[in-house]
Amino acid sequence: MKEKFHQYIQDLQNTITSKLEDIDGGAKFKEDLWERAEGGGGRTRVIQNGAVFEKGGVNISAVHGELPETMQDYFKVNDANFFACGLSLVLHPKNPMVPTAHANWRYFEMYDKSGAIVDQWFGGGQDLTPYYLFEEDVVHFHNTCKIACDKHSPVFYNDFKKKCDSYFWNAHRNEARGVGGLFFDYCKGSEQMTMQNWYAFVAEVGNSFLEAYVPIVEKRKDLPYTDRHRNWQEIRRGRYVEFNLVHDKGTLFGLKTNGRIESILMSLPPHVQWVYNHQPESGSEEEQLLKVLKKPIEWV
Amino acid sequence: MKEKFHQYIQDLQNTITSKLEDIDGGAKFKEDLWERAEGGGGRTRVIQNGAVFEKGGVNISAVHGELPETMQDYFKVNDANFFACGLSLVLHPKNPMVPTAHANWRYFEMYDKSGAIVDQWFGGGQDLTPYYLFEEDVVHFHNTCKIACDKHSPVFYNDFKKKCDSYFWNAHRNEARGVGGLFFDYCKGSEQMTMQNWYAFVAEVGNSFLEAYVPIVEKRKDLPYTDRHRNWQEIRRGRYVEFNLVHDKGTLFGLKTNGRIESILMSLPPHVQWVYNHQPESGSEEEQLLKVLKKPIEWV
Repeated sequence: MKEKFHQYIQDLQNTITSKLEDIDGGAKFKEDLWERAEGGGGRTRVIQNGAVFEKGGVNISAVHGELPETMQDYFKVNDANFFACGLSLVLHPKNPMVPTAHANWRYFEMYDKSGAIVDQWFGGGQDLTPYYLFEEDVVHFHNTCKIACDKHSPVFYNDFKKKCDSYFWNAHRNEARGVGGLFFDYCKGSEQMTMQNWYAFVAEVGNSFLEAYVPIVEKRKDLPYTDRHRNWQEIRRGRYVEFNLVHDKGTLFGLKTNGRIESILMSLPPHVQWVYNHQPESGSEEEQLLKVLKKPIEWV
Repeated sequence: MKEKFHQYIQDLQNTITSKLEDIDGGAKFKEDLWERAEGGGGRTRVIQNGAVFEKGGVNISAVHGELPETMQDYFKVNDANFFACGLSLVLHPKNPMVPTAHANWRYFEMYDKSGAIVDQWFGGGQDLTPYYLFEEDVVHFHNTCKIACDKHSPVFYNDFKKKCDSYFWNAHRNEARGVGGLFFDYCKGSEQMTMQNWYAFVAEVGNSFLEAYVPIVEKRKDLPYTDRHRNWQEIRRGRYVEFNLVHDKGTLFGLKTNGRIESILMSLPPHVQWVYNHQPESGSEEEQLLKVLKKPIEWV
C-alpha cells in the first residue's frame, strides 16, 4: 500500500501543478527536493507572484524511521517505527474574490521493533476559505466533495463535512477558518471498508480537487477589486495564520518534530495584516462573510 | 501589594503612552476599557498608523477569580483562586531602522479556598527586536537594563539577560526573536529579597523602559529607507508572529483562558509577509542581522 499511495501522490502532484500553471499563465512552480536526516524526504513545489496565485505550495513527502518522542506520546506507543507520506497543498490567490484552497491526503503506517506492521490508516480532506462569499461557489465545492464521497458510502459526506467544520474552527475567535469541505482521519481497514477501499476513496477525493476548485478560480480570477477588498483579504489571511500556528495539528507536529520548516510554512499567506479590533461595516459583504463563519451551514 | 502594584502600572501606562504620543506627533492612543466576565478587566490603549508607530499597544489588566483549569494544570494546583495584574506593551515602528520593542511587568497572587494567600510572585522583562542592526543601540538598551538591575543585585543582569535569550528563542527557526534584554519570572520573597524588594526592582525596570528605548527611536525614526528595507522588516515581522503564536506562553495562556482576544493579539504587527525560503544576500546587512540572531551576544 505504501508504494501504491506514494506513487499516487507523485502523479497527483504532477497533475495539479501542471493544471495550476496553465491557469496562472504567469509564474511556474519552483521545485525543491529535500532529505530528512532521520529517513525519507520530499518534493516541495512553490509558486509565487503569479498572475493568479500570489503564493501557493503543492508538496509531497514520504518520511520514515523511529517515531519521534512527541508523536509516541501523542499516539501513546513506545519505541515504534513509522512510515508517513502525503500531499499537502495551499493556494493563496491574488484576487480577493478567489478563495484560498487547502487540501491534504496522507497515509500512515506504524511498525513494532521486529518490523511487523501494527497499525495503518489514511487521512486527509480539502476545504475552502473565501474572502467574499459567492454562495454558488461554495455549493459547487461541497457538491463536488459530496459526489466523490457518495461513490463510497452514503454517510461519508455528512460525517466528513461535520469533521471539517469542527477541525477548522478558530476557537479563540469563535469562528470557522472558512466554509469547510471534507476532513477525515484514522481511516482504518474493516470488513466493510478495507484498506483497498479506503485507498480508492482517498484517491477519489484527491482526483476531485481540481474539479472542485478550478471552476471557481476561472470564474472569479478576473473580477475587479479595490484596496478595500484587498485589505479585507489581508486581514482575513491573518486569521488563516492564527489557525495554522495556534491550532493546526499538522503544522505543530511538523514544527516540533524537526520537519522541513520552509515546506511546512509555505502554507502562510504572502501579505498579511493585523488591524486592532477590526469590525466590518454593518450590512457590508465583509460582515456577511463573518456571519456565515460563525455558524457552519449545510451547503448541499 | 496588589493595590500598590496595580496603582504603579496604571501610572506607568499613563507615563508611557503620553511620552510615546509626544514622540509620534501624528496619532493618539485609543483607549478601550473592558471587563472580564469571571472577574476584573483592563484598560487597552492602542496606537495605529502614527507617524512613528505603525501599530502599538500599551495595555494593563487586573483579573481575578477561580484559577482556570488550564492554569491549574500548569501550576499543578487544585481549586485555587488568583489575582493577576500587569502591563504589556509592544511597539511596531514604521521605519525599519527603528526596532520593535516589547515589555511586560506583572504580579500574581494565588489563594486557597479560605481566601488565604498561598503564593505570590513578580515577573516581566523588556526586549528589543531590530530589523537592521545598530550595535550602539543594542548596547544602549542593554546598558540601561544593566544599570537598573545593578541597583538591586550584581547577578540580576547576567541572570535575566540569559533568561531572556533562552525565552525569546524561535526554536523552529533556530534563531532568536531579537537581541534580547531582560526576562524574569516567579520572583518570590525570601530573607535576602522580600516582596517589597522585588516590587522596587520591577518598578526600577519599568521606569527604565522609556530611557532604554526612546533615545533609539529618536535617533533612527527619520533615517531614509527603501522598499527593500521595508520588505525585510515585513518578513522579519513574520518571525515575530511565529514566536508569539507558537511559543509565547503569555499569548497562548490568554488564548486558552478566555482573555480579551483583541488586547492579547495587539502584539501582532500591522503589515507582514511570508516569502518562501527567503535568504538574504551574502554579505548584506540583512544577513548580518541573522548571524547575530543565531547566537546570543554579550552586549555589555
